[in-house]
Amino acid sequence: MEERLADLGESELLRRLAAWAPAGQFDDDAALLEERSGRLLVVNTDVLVEGVHFSDSTMGASDLGWRAAAANLSDLAAMGCREVVGLTVGLVAPGATPWPWVVGVYDGLAEALGRYGGSLLGGDCCRGEQRLLAVTALGHVGEGPIRRGDGRPGDRLVSTGPHGLSRLGLALLQQDPDPALADLPGTGLAARAVACHRRPQPRFDAVAALEDCRPPAQPWRVGGCDSSDGLLASVAAIATSSGCTALLERQQLPLDSELARLDPAVRWCLEGGEDFELVLALPPAWAEALCRRLPGCTLIGALQTAEHPSRRGEVLWGDDQNPVRASGAQFHHFG
Amino acid sequence: MEERLADLGESELLRRLAAWAPAGQFDDDAALLEERSGRLLVVNTDVLVEGVHFSDSTMGASDLGWRAAAANLSDLAAMGCREVVGLTVGLVAPGATPWPWVVGVYDGLAEALGRYGGSLLGGDCCRGEQRLLAVTALGHVGEGPIRRGDGRPGDRLVSTGPHGLSRLGLALLQQDPDPALADLPGTGLAARAVACHRRPQPRFDAVAALEDCRPPAQPWRVGGCDSSDGLLASVAAIATSSGCTALLERQQLPLDSELARLDPAVRWCLEGGEDFELVLALPPAWAEALCRRLPGCTLIGALQTAEHPSRRGEVLWGDDQNPVRASGAQFHHFG
Repeated sequence: MEERLADLGESELLRRLAAWAPAGQFDDDAALLEERSGRLLVVNTDVLVEGVHFSDSTMGASDLGWRAAAANLSDLAAMGCREVVGLTVGLVAPGATPWPWVVGVYDGLAEALGRYGGSLLGGDCCRGEQRLLAVTALGHVGEGPIRRGDGRPGDRLVSTGPHGLSRLGLALLQQDPDPALADLPGTGLAARAVACHRRPQPRFDAVAALEDCRPPAQPWRVGGCDSSDGLLASVAAIATSSGCTALLERQQLPLDSELARLDPAVRWCLEGGEDFELVLALPPAWAEALCRRLPGCTLIGALQTAEHPSRRGEVLWGDDQNPVRASGAQFHHFG
Repeated sequence: MEERLADLGESELLRRLAAWAPAGQFDDDAALLEERSGRLLVVNTDVLVEGVHFSDSTMGASDLGWRAAAANLSDLAAMGCREVVGLTVGLVAPGATPWPWVVGVYDGLAEALGRYGGSLLGGDCCRGEQRLLAVTALGHVGEGPIRRGDGRPGDRLVSTGPHGLSRLGLALLQQDPDPALADLPGTGLAARAVACHRRPQPRFDAVAALEDCRPPAQPWRVGGCDSSDGLLASVAAIATSSGCTALLERQQLPLDSELARLDPAVRWCLEGGEDFELVLALPPAWAEALCRRLPGCTLIGALQTAEHPSRRGEVLWGDDQNPVRASGAQFHHFG
């Protein structure tokens, strides 16, 4: 029987699509292009589809605009960008869409650009059955690029902030009937979680801190990506591209202390997704310096030599060397 | 009553969206970004939606891939690009979409990149109700940029090739019952028209010819755009952005000689759209040199000083100064 996209899933589809690009081109969150001056331009395209990435019940138009910009800008930060050039936006919507909704979306996009720099460069618009934003972000790398494959055995794994809050925010916005969440509405934790989901913050500040605290004799070499697909997926991606096995410390999971009391906390921390933090693989002295410099930044594990090529990309718990298993609840955008 | 996008139409919507961008940013087919070396990078995003821009009845997957690339690359050529850097592609499709369809699309994209240069830089994919491609193209300007607003009174208007064939191709593919088309299937004209519609050719060769035949004392100044929205719309856009009135010569319409015998020929030439030729406003000596150099390139009219600011952007017939009226059959992607 003919294979359908739903049978493949998003990550297998992207893996196959890489065959049409130069070798290694699809390994990272975004594309790196070297300008004549040697400066590196980063280009990233993300598509946000109604019913998959957003819905009227979880966010208003200006939150959607912010989020569309922020998700893209996070991919720039994940490549080591310090300077945002701007965005192009492809807008698709049914003809019955009210103009004020578009105003809200563009206000949100502009608000994010106002915060992080750059401008609206251009775009296209068209009628379609479903609301959709296709955003391309451009920016310039600072001192050096961050790449998934630049981790090495012995590197420490660093998370620039807690994970799982965005997933909690989504659960609250979707009025998830899970009894663990029954007492949350109205609390500070709930407000923080909803804000994390609706207004993610690309971590350009973490890139700046990373540059500032590089040990003097340390050449630039930073493995990493953002955690938009979930912390575990990010660690696995770095381990795979770097040809290593990753160890995660059970006691060092980057959990928000209030979130940690909830039953699904560990699962959401590992697999919730859309936290848009950076996950980095750094030589130990640099990793420790970054954690001292950047509030909320923590050591979560390490990369080690894979015992066998077949074990590259595995993520194990550091205490008992058991695999950190996915619950199967990860993003499957074609599922 | 609340305004809806269908009430606005695509061009009014784009005009309003420009308010969120720096002044003038939306005036051209694509965005120009100056690199440190002074070289100009061009960035363009186009969205192609099933049922609006394509359907299984009018083109197969590889034609769609070619067309998606070619339409974007045409916007690069329309800005004066000589070198294609590459494309990012956002792919949206229902989960039931067969994988071989995706293979066809990417083969078509790669075929166009193989012809015109550049590579697949990256992309994103997601499930959605409707098939859709959001393509961002990047390239570098050669000797100088081409801009809609760089025309001046006295410039000659040049078309790099005939117009209307793509529209005829669409009519044939849609099995338009117009009796004027009854005898066409199987003819050479029909084959050419279908090829024009399915495999448009971005005119990088015309940019090269333009550079080659610039008169020695002539500084770089080229008004222009591509004719993706139709010849009349292109001329009106150049006239509007350049603050001029445009004159078109009735006897000099860029009509394919075989197409000219068909009843709707003039209307399709003016408003058919998707021919992806370049329409340029050039100082007379340069315009004439280009027409001598480039086969199929013809003088079609001129820009003149608008008698009154309210007449900027008007397109008149050169013989009787009557307005070249639109039939109302132009593209309205939200209609």
